Amino acid sequence: MSLTVTQRQDLLDGARSAVAAASALVRQRMTAGFSTWKKADQSFVTEVDLAVERQLRDDLASRFPGHDILGEELDRLEQGSEFQWIIDPIDGTLSFARGIPLFGIILGLYYRGQPLLGLIDHPALGLTYSGGRGLGAWRNDRRLQLQDLAADTPVADEPIAAGDRAQFSRSGLDPIFDRLVTGHPRVRTYADCFGHTLAIQGSVGAMVDFGLRIWDISATQVMVEEAGGVFYAIERQDGSDGARYYHMVCGKPRVVEWVLEQIAATGLLPDLR
Amino acid sequence: MSLTVTQRQDLLDGARSAVAAASALVRQRMTAGFSTWKKADQSFVTEVDLAVERQLRDDLASRFPGHDILGEELDRLEQGSEFQWIIDPIDGTLSFARGIPLFGIILGLYYRGQPLLGLIDHPALGLTYSGGRGLGAWRNDRRLQLQDLAADTPVADEPIAAGDRAQFSRSGLDPIFDRLVTGHPRVRTYADCFGHTLAIQGSVGAMVDFGLRIWDISATQVMVEEAGGVFYAIERQDGSDGARYYHMVCGKPRVVEWVLEQIAATGLLPDLR
Repeated sequence: MSLTVTQRQDLLDGARSAVAAASALVRQRMTAGFSTWKKADQSFVTEVDLAVERQLRDDLASRFPGHDILGEELDRLEQGSEFQWIIDPIDGTLSFARGIPLFGIILGLYYRGQPLLGLIDHPALGLTYSGGRGLGAWRNDRRLQLQDLAADTPVADEPIAAGDRAQFSRSGLDPIFDRLVTGHPRVRTYADCFGHTLAIQGSVGAMVDFGLRIWDISATQVMVEEAGGVFYAIERQDGSDGARYYHMVCGKPRVVEWVLEQIAATGLLPDLR
Repeated sequence: MSLTVTQRQDLLDGARSAVAAASALVRQRMTAGFSTWKKADQSFVTEVDLAVERQLRDDLASRFPGHDILGEELDRLEQGSEFQWIIDPIDGTLSFARGIPLFGIILGLYYRGQPLLGLIDHPALGLTYSGGRGLGAWRNDRRLQLQDLAADTPVADEPIAAGDRAQFSRSGLDPIFDRLVTGHPRVRTYADCFGHTLAIQGSVGAMVDFGLRIWDISATQVMVEEAGGVFYAIERQDGSDGARYYHMVCGKPRVVEWVLEQIAATGLLPDLR
């Protein structure tokens, strides 16, 4: 059976409360100082990542007992539920550790394997993005509506966000990054979830983010689609480390279309669309 | 004769007050809505750019009568003073107009042709950077001290900020941009003054910003040098539009050194150092 609007809204309200508490914890720890180290995959982690994931797990387990939980830093909780929460406690840990205020907390909820809710919170910016199937997409308490690029506006006038080139290289897809950057005057590397929220609110025409894990991407599809945008992603086992990565494009339909044409022209990722 | 510490501190205090008032005006107008248009050079301007420059000029003229003033949007005020204020009312107008919170107000003071004070304010981030010769560099009320990269830390571990590739292309210097982006795993386009303030506080190892006008760069040298970093810039008449542009690198000594080596290897800008 499918979920009622009330059930979905209750889940979203609970998720918003959990994320607000996590955001407060991050702000408190930002000023206190923390240690940072490198993980086996050479990405960074701090003690704040771990503290936030622990708090979010406890919070969600107490609000929604029986639900499954998957997080970036800690072991998977599997109880056979149709609901699975997906946590990235700090997306953009490199930025967080270095005082660049563009990191975020990502929380997604999947129901029967499909994305149902998505939340991205930027603790240092005071901005919370949230959305749910049939519930709209929101920045704080303002509803978001993406306007597609007008037919007479050149795609070149619309900034495009991209992840770091190294994320493309890891899957041998840096020719796609290079084609976008050299073929468009306003491609900027707004890495991590900051690029996602810029696309969700239409500040950029599209976000092109490659080499992602499930927790990097679990919140974005619901929000961008609820705002009126489009979302394409594919999972492939193509990392130089043998891992599976998602490659994603989302945003305003006309701009995403232009990006997909550039990707197609490289011949490197024929099955993205 | 040279200026006393008290004289310099009084100038800096006045500049901080003027910038705080301009920042409040920007925050007020951000929420109210405004119109945007393209200038002859194809860059964007909004009515807020004009309102902020007018207010800053009036404010500075009343605090410091007799001083010269040069601003991006309005006519130059020349009264034969040894002091010249240089204003960019909104640096990163494209970001401002699109709701990307990384724009800023730039105010520099030159004395006898040399930079004396520099201020960059990010109204949407609640951050004010300021500094003066012999007065230190500050983020809000915290003094900034840049640590050079430790000798055993690879330059590749240190993020580097760069301006938009189109700013390099305009002067035929995009091979420099491309060499940096493909030769280093963490070059990010943090365009405009946001990249400058990241370098001033050491969040990135260097900022590489090409194709600048004097108002884009008037605040940076004093702050980065007072924080303990290095600054190189050169002005050349090499724009595809026949204009003169500054090309700038600043930040931590070891990282700037690496950037200068990359630039030297292209053979394109032999006189930057």
